[in-house]
This record gives sequence, C-alpha cells and structure tokens, in this order.
Amino acid sequence: MMSTIDALKWRYATKKMNGEKVSQDKVDQILQAAHLAPTSSGLQPFKIIVVTNPELKEKIKAVAYGQSQITDSSHLLIFAAWDNYTEDRVRGVYAHANRERGLPDAANADFVNNMVANFTAKTAEESYAHAAKQAYIAFGVAITEAALLQVDATPMEGFEAEKLDELLGLRAQGLRSTTLLPLGYRDTASDWLVNLKKVRTPQEDFVIDLG
Amino acid sequence: MMSTIDALKWRYATKKMNGEKVSQDKVDQILQAAHLAPTSSGLQPFKIIVVTNPELKEKIKAVAYGQSQITDSSHLLIFAAWDNYTEDRVRGVYAHANRERGLPDAANADFVNNMVANFTAKTAEESYAHAAKQAYIAFGVAITEAALLQVDATPMEGFEAEKLDELLGLRAQGLRSTTLLPLGYRDTASDWLVNLKKVRTPQEDFVIDLG
Repeated sequence: MMSTIDALKWRYATKKMNGEKVSQDKVDQILQAAHLAPTSSGLQPFKIIVVTNPELKEKIKAVAYGQSQITDSSHLLIFAAWDNYTEDRVRGVYAHANRERGLPDAANADFVNNMVANFTAKTAEESYAHAAKQAYIAFGVAITEAALLQVDATPMEGFEAEKLDELLGLRAQGLRSTTLLPLGYRDTASDWLVNLKKVRTPQEDFVIDLG
Repeated sequence: MMSTIDALKWRYATKKMNGEKVSQDKVDQILQAAHLAPTSSGLQPFKIIVVTNPELKEKIKAVAYGQSQITDSSHLLIFAAWDNYTEDRVRGVYAHANRERGLPDAANADFVNNMVANFTAKTAEESYAHAAKQAYIAFGVAITEAALLQVDATPMEGFEAEKLDELLGLRAQGLRSTTLLPLGYRDTASDWLVNLKKVRTPQEDFVIDLG
C-alpha cells in the first residue's frame, strides 16, 4: 500500500470520471472506514446512502448543478446527518453499546442520562450542525481510504440539500443530506484539473508551532 | 503498513497517555496529511497549532475540563478555523495558487470574483461554521494517519473554546479553536477504555443501499 501522503498527493477533486466500476470490495472498505470514524461521544449521528442506479443518479445530478461526476461515477455516496438529537436516538446508541459489551441494560445509567440531557438541550438546528460536523470526520476518513485504494472521489458540498432531501425522502427518516462523494475513476483525457499542479497553502503558514 | 481498517480498529479515544514522545517525523506526517486534506474550493480555512510546552499544556488543560491527555500527550494539535471569509483571505488563496501554477495574477479572474462574492456574502457566524466543517475533514484525515502510524490520539470537542481562544490570542489572528487532538501513546495499564470492546452502530443500519 502506498503512504497516506503519496495517496493524498495522488488524489484530487476529480472533475471527469470514465464510468468504470469500482469493485464492491473497495466500496465496502471505504464504507467500513467511514463507519469506524470517531464521533462525538460515539453517537455516529449520520448514515451513508449508496446510489448506483443510473436513473436515480440523473435525478440527483439535476439538484447538484449538473455535475457530471454524479452520473459518471461508479457509486455515489451521500453522507446524511441526523436532523436532531432525540432521547430515543441517544439512548439507542448506548443501549446497543451495552449489549455489545455484555453489560446490563442499566449500566452507565448516569452517563447516559447526562448524554441525553446534554444532547437534547440543543435546538434542532444546533443538533444538525453538530451532527453534520461528525459526518465531516467520516467524510475525511472515507476520502483518505479511497485515495489509499486508488479510487477517485470528488468531495462535494455543491448541491441543493433541501431538494435532495425531498427526492430521497430523507426528512421522513430524520436525516438531512450533508455532503456527496462520487466514487469512480478519472477520465484522464478529458479532465481539465487532472494535470494542474496540486496547490496547498504554504505549510509554514498552515502550522503554528508554539513549542 | 497495516490496512486502514485495521488501523481504525486499533485506534480509540485514548483516555490515558504515558508521556512518551512521538517522533518529529511522525508528527510531520500527520500534519502533512491534514495539510493535504481537501476543502471547499481549496480555501483551507484553518490552521493547526502545535503545543509541546508543559506549562502551556497545563494552562490549556485548565480550559479543557482537566483532561489528562492534554498534559500527558507528546504533541497537542489545535485545529483553529477562520473566524470569517474576507475578500483578502479568499483572493490570497487563489493568488497563491496562480503563482504556484505559473499563471499570471489576473488568471481566472471571473472565478475568483465569484468566489469572493459567494464567500463574503455569508455572515461571520455562517463563515466560521463552514470553515470549521472544512477543519473537520482534515481532522478525520489526521486521525486516520495517526492510526496508520500507530500513534495514539484523542479527538476532543470538550473544551471551553472562547477561553482557549483568549489564552492563545487566536481571535486577534482571525481564528477560533475548533477541535483538539493530543498525540501520544496509550498507558495500557491505567486506561479504563483500552480493553473495552470497540462498538459501532450496526453496519446494516449505517449504510442505506438504494441500488
């Protein structure tokens, strides 16, 4: 496997994909990496929706400013965060953790009650904003894993979130679309970005070493 | 190098570190990975502050609920996002990109003007919220790279951001502290979390495959 640094230098926000399929094994590894990403208090307040159907991808492209990667991708990942922290959701996460760890249902009751109080004190908008940030951690993990597997990906915020939520019925599931990640392979011959030098802010400005 | 999946299974939110130093080479790789993370329109609207000084770490611990990893870590990384998108900042990023790509200063002027208009139309709070999300992408990348290098890390949102901003004079630099990432090595003998089973929500609930 190549180093993370080399993989991140290799990757870029692919502008034109060639339609080639990504193997299910690689897609599964990318999803599993995102699933293992850390989140605030372990809540994992988001899901990943996978779309491969061409007609559905066409409809999604129409609410994403016509970006061709959506239809030329192999798999489109949609990161969708919880629209709110509810008592049921928070309790559900820790009840599952207790079961997985062979603990009684009532284990860590004070901790769980505190978590419920803290998280349900937020407004729905605050909750969504916080949940979305957790999804961005997993987004970063998924992008890294795709690069390590030499799978191209285009991180996207540019889409009409409310229209996408409506198209996929996300609000009825308590979810809001947050980011998109088409996976596929670069079309080297016709991608205007592929040969442009990758630029980052100067490293010496990016890191402030206070000693 | 181990696989990303194995590395992410190995990692956990380390609760007790042993004070051992992380080599500069590994810290540099983690910082470089974060530096290479993708961000919205390539703006990279955040910096990473590195703290190793024990007295300064003590002061930071005092505004982070006394969490011992801050002082027991080798290096404390502070992800600090831009407090606002300003015309100067946005133009500065693209002027740098043009120089790096050997293009004239006036290259892509329409694109740059659009970016300035889009980003400066946000309020300062909206701008910070958006910039912070970009920092979370890099946070996810840094956490992944630390795990791949077998460096322990504790992703933290639990600190008093305004007090930390004041302590480090961040607002005067147009920055706001967003997340913390102490780097170091687990103290296996006294970390209560190290031997607890890692739990994630069931994979079948996490992924929604629409076909």
